[in-house]
Amino acid sequence: MENKTNNKFTPLSTLGEFGLIDKLTKNLKILHKSTIKGIGDDAAVLDYGEKFIVLTTDILTEGVHFNLVYMPLKHLGYKAVVVNLSDIYAMNAYPRQITVSITISAKFSVEHIEELYQGIKFACDKYGVDLVGGDTTSSYTGLTISIAAIGEAAKNKVVYRSGAKENDLICVSGNLGGAYMGLQLLERERKLFEKGSVERPDFGDYNYILERQLKPEARKDIIEMFKETGIKPTSMIDISDGLSSELLHICKSSGIGCSVYQDKIPIDKETVIMAEEFHIPPLTAALNGGEDYELLFTVPLDTYDIISARPEVSIIGHISKQETGCRLIMSSGSEVEITAQGWNALKDQQ
Amino acid sequence: MENKTNNKFTPLSTLGEFGLIDKLTKNLKILHKSTIKGIGDDAAVLDYGEKFIVLTTDILTEGVHFNLVYMPLKHLGYKAVVVNLSDIYAMNAYPRQITVSITISAKFSVEHIEELYQGIKFACDKYGVDLVGGDTTSSYTGLTISIAAIGEAAKNKVVYRSGAKENDLICVSGNLGGAYMGLQLLERERKLFEKGSVERPDFGDYNYILERQLKPEARKDIIEMFKETGIKPTSMIDISDGLSSELLHICKSSGIGCSVYQDKIPIDKETVIMAEEFHIPPLTAALNGGEDYELLFTVPLDTYDIISARPEVSIIGHISKQETGCRLIMSSGSEVEITAQGWNALKDQQ
Repeated sequence: MENKTNNKFTPLSTLGEFGLIDKLTKNLKILHKSTIKGIGDDAAVLDYGEKFIVLTTDILTEGVHFNLVYMPLKHLGYKAVVVNLSDIYAMNAYPRQITVSITISAKFSVEHIEELYQGIKFACDKYGVDLVGGDTTSSYTGLTISIAAIGEAAKNKVVYRSGAKENDLICVSGNLGGAYMGLQLLERERKLFEKGSVERPDFGDYNYILERQLKPEARKDIIEMFKETGIKPTSMIDISDGLSSELLHICKSSGIGCSVYQDKIPIDKETVIMAEEFHIPPLTAALNGGEDYELLFTVPLDTYDIISARPEVSIIGHISKQETGCRLIMSSGSEVEITAQGWNALKDQQ
Repeated sequence: MENKTNNKFTPLSTLGEFGLIDKLTKNLKILHKSTIKGIGDDAAVLDYGEKFIVLTTDILTEGVHFNLVYMPLKHLGYKAVVVNLSDIYAMNAYPRQITVSITISAKFSVEHIEELYQGIKFACDKYGVDLVGGDTTSSYTGLTISIAAIGEAAKNKVVYRSGAKENDLICVSGNLGGAYMGLQLLERERKLFEKGSVERPDFGDYNYILERQLKPEARKDIIEMFKETGIKPTSMIDISDGLSSELLHICKSSGIGCSVYQDKIPIDKETVIMAEEFHIPPLTAALNGGEDYELLFTVPLDTYDIISARPEVSIIGHISKQETGCRLIMSSGSEVEITAQGWNALKDQQ
């Protein structure tokens, strides 16, 4: 484990999460015909009969993904479930079962873990999924929650990141950047409070962005909208790492380019106000903020009339040839290349 | 989070792992008809078509489940997969896919994680399972590995903990206590080495028990034996927490009692020698040691001729009425009540 003095060791931060995953999983053999899609999408797709099963997992760890100073355990349990369900919906599938594994240190009591599970069960009830298993064990340092979720979809309904076609409309549900600005607010007030500069944290009336950060929802309604309208997206991904990063995933997986218009990117007014307070361009929060758990998807151009009439969806651009790259058309008319600067799970290390 | 001075908080250690799980999962609603069996067995059982799917998850954390001073990362990756596959086999099912989620601190380099994944992939190859997804993120403190495994079985082949019947034979694969004695040896040598009492750790010729601890295998061969002989166990569980604990799980789930004979419990001679060095009764290592990943199962009495001819299986006792309790018949003829003192994931906390 002595990597500090030895040059042959490569720090994790040089590769980042996606680089590391690419390196670890290249040349991976697939042995079973039941494995339809392995690594490289929001969830794996498995064939065990009439329908496809989708399987995803996420791991959240104290100090990196959440801070218990302002994250109530009940909310944390809820959010830990929701982030997994979001990955299932991103496959155009319905979540059915989850397992929950946690490691907990002695600073937690039975009552704390019950509170965490209240949130987990509340999310299960709300989204209609069964908690079917897990593992509970001690740790020396804080709390880690690992959830695996299983969902199902008719075989012809599963949507991958890889199906976007030229001229498809690029759409996003809800609005972006709110969770990130909520986090900035929480962090600012935490620091002021801990320094003793304020008697109590002051969150003003920013309930919306706080809720976006502390109690996000997964967009089940969008999947139901697809069912209701008979529209099947050509590609889809959930926005966990920021719009830029997810657009690049779709472009790379589908082998296409895109044009996205600044004016069309939906940003809530609370997000705008808070971003201005922090001197952050609201666009930056939307592009790179992450944790919004909205769905980014592409649909054929001929669905325009239906999609444009849906208040919960914004059309933000269109798919183009690969050669044109991934471009953001600014309000000024200038164009910039989209690059990923979103949440990188491995670059924040200390 | 301030639970030190407040009496209304209950320390986790008062309930232990199984008590906590019982508390957290009581009154759990099952919403989907696809959920055949939720919490309470080695794996959940799901119905998505022709066959049953089984789903299990395990989480391993540095300092609690493994010590990287003597656990090579490659072995750790291998073991992390094997402990999950063992749960799948314990359902009389075949593992097909796994997901791997890890949290890693900055002390690890890309090369370390590659070594871990070498072990993971080696286990996948050996047992014929596909690595289909996961999550990789940073942590502030060491390494945590969470694996979920999916397996399949014909609907009439799945074996639960709950089917043991009076007069069934109680059987165990391989031998017990070795992994525990291997751990004792590793810990002793680590302490001597760290104190400077020895120039290098001396593991003597105890290769077998070291391998039992560092590179355990899952008993795929036992499941294949069932297929080959046409025997379906009435109940089954894998021995991860020690024979006592697993016997009690089967007795409780099946609503029966048992008689197990000290003389019949298989213990390897290396385990016996090491136990004597440590002044631990070898029987204690077998009953309470844990991490052997053997299979404990019950079969109908009329399979005696087939089962007793299998060198890889020992018949250690028989199932009795619930009223007789769970008894261990000692070589001396005296009887003792079996109690669980095995590995308790929540009682070792500091």
